[in-house]
Amino acid sequence: MSVTIALDAMGGDHGPQVVVPAALKVLSEMEDVRLILTGDQDLLCGLVAAHHGTLGARLIVQHASQKVEMDEAPSQALRTKKDSSMRVAINLVKSGKADACVSAGNTGALMAIARFVLKTLPGIDRPAIVSALPTIQGHCYMLDLGANVDSSAENLYQFALMGSVLASAIDNVPEPSIGLLNIGTEVIKGNEQIKQAGRMLTQSHLNYVGFVEGDDVYEGCVDVVVCDGFVGNVALKSSEGVARMVRYYLRESFQRNFLTRLAGLLVRPVLKTFRERMDPRRYNGANLLGLNGVVIKSHGGADITAFAHAIRIAVIEARKDVPKHISAHIEPWLLEGQAV
Amino acid sequence: MSVTIALDAMGGDHGPQVVVPAALKVLSEMEDVRLILTGDQDLLCGLVAAHHGTLGARLIVQHASQKVEMDEAPSQALRTKKDSSMRVAINLVKSGKADACVSAGNTGALMAIARFVLKTLPGIDRPAIVSALPTIQGHCYMLDLGANVDSSAENLYQFALMGSVLASAIDNVPEPSIGLLNIGTEVIKGNEQIKQAGRMLTQSHLNYVGFVEGDDVYEGCVDVVVCDGFVGNVALKSSEGVARMVRYYLRESFQRNFLTRLAGLLVRPVLKTFRERMDPRRYNGANLLGLNGVVIKSHGGADITAFAHAIRIAVIEARKDVPKHISAHIEPWLLEGQAV
Repeated sequence: MSVTIALDAMGGDHGPQVVVPAALKVLSEMEDVRLILTGDQDLLCGLVAAHHGTLGARLIVQHASQKVEMDEAPSQALRTKKDSSMRVAINLVKSGKADACVSAGNTGALMAIARFVLKTLPGIDRPAIVSALPTIQGHCYMLDLGANVDSSAENLYQFALMGSVLASAIDNVPEPSIGLLNIGTEVIKGNEQIKQAGRMLTQSHLNYVGFVEGDDVYEGCVDVVVCDGFVGNVALKSSEGVARMVRYYLRESFQRNFLTRLAGLLVRPVLKTFRERMDPRRYNGANLLGLNGVVIKSHGGADITAFAHAIRIAVIEARKDVPKHISAHIEPWLLEGQAV
Repeated sequence: MSVTIALDAMGGDHGPQVVVPAALKVLSEMEDVRLILTGDQDLLCGLVAAHHGTLGARLIVQHASQKVEMDEAPSQALRTKKDSSMRVAINLVKSGKADACVSAGNTGALMAIARFVLKTLPGIDRPAIVSALPTIQGHCYMLDLGANVDSSAENLYQFALMGSVLASAIDNVPEPSIGLLNIGTEVIKGNEQIKQAGRMLTQSHLNYVGFVEGDDVYEGCVDVVVCDGFVGNVALKSSEGVARMVRYYLRESFQRNFLTRLAGLLVRPVLKTFRERMDPRRYNGANLLGLNGVVIKSHGGADITAFAHAIRIAVIEARKDVPKHISAHIEPWLLEGQAV
């Protein structure tokens, strides 16, 4: 199935310097994919040529005269950047000219503009940021990773529903197992929202397995981990921090002296396998789930490899039409709840 | 300075099988330390003998007829286990017969009993769980790690004050830098409690440097990281999970085939250095900070090495008399706030 992906070519720390070569990389690898670069037309056409790419049926440029800055307030970007590369990319999804969009730009602005332009799906109060995380057994999906703070029990329930549909659609798991992130053996087991969400999930048709703790996430004991955005963001970033520290320790252990450096050379292929498996670029590309359209957020600092991965995720989700699946699984009471 | 530490010898997954040899290990290493084992007298005396230890001036047993179970409700333990090894150990701190106590038992029960018996320090509303965490530069202290959920701005402020005093007392840092754990570039930067705590800390005499994110923790950019207990617990356990996954990946990379296993043998000393640096046992021993006495919580599953480390932490904190230092730094407005 042919899909078209709009790429915010000006977003992210490196802008078109990363987006253009990543786009060409994906086009060379994947059939039946069309890409639309949004941003400064002259700049983008020049870069495509410089990277030996050709504009045509599979790669076109859609001019956008503005750019959302990385530190710009989302409300300001929404109000004043109506011709930004980010907004133009989202508009292409809205108009149906693209099946999904990818941006490495300002997360807050992306969420605000996508929500304004595309709207949330009926029955979903707030979109959530979801990403696949590596586990010992493979991967799991965790949401919300930072779009919402102070999530209510109803929000958490909606996250669980959306995560379940996503895991099912992408990985062909019939009934993805869902865990609610909580604190375990400590004094007070979770707050009221979590307890209430647990009760709602127990009574639902979803494959809810109960509370999970932070360390369970990486064991891979569930397919979907549900949590408030503040908690999820801290968990994700702490995990990234630990992984970085471990890589630092490992490098340092092999660089202590001549002998350890020699040992490092001998085991280079093994360490390469290890590093590749740990490579965070393999997991770049988070989903703004719950919108009426597929919007993928790349890390701002993504390089070509990482941004290409985010494009591939957009292709997969566009092909699977995840928003349609979510709509099909929204329960009547969620729609009623929203109508009130 | 001679100190006496009470050890809940029946607590934890392994009880006296770990506590007794760990106690003997510490006694053989450290001068001027006296240990009191609380629990079943006959069992403990037998185990001390079996491990070739001698009871006497430096090691005594204080009989306790009960034991708090690992899954027991804190309220029940508080009400019905008045002669438990845990409570007897805490009572020894209360009566001044011990300068600190260590338990690997049920965290909730330990917090409830310690709070009931020892009380919180004047000006401190809730005790917090704090532990040292490894960073690229050394270590930092993080609190709260799970004693409190839904912490108010005032609670967070008190955690910051206590963490600052702890880091200053233990590491001799004159003005420890303090960061408030928040989410960064995402849609909504933190909730009201965190924003308010940030304002309070900015106006205080503490060396507050601002918000930090999850990945900053392990960079070691601050001496003290302050957060709500739910968030801290999830961050800590996620970090443990990632570290475990990384060790698993690394082991697996070296065990793929004959050649990689051979490579693993060649770099054994390097990997040993790395593993030692990553060893979570080196960080075993969390502090229940804010109580009128030093109470150290060991991981429930601690082995001899890990439990011995928790005892050493108790010795250091008892010698430094951390609760006295906290009391000396409590600001008048905190006492007034509490009187209302």
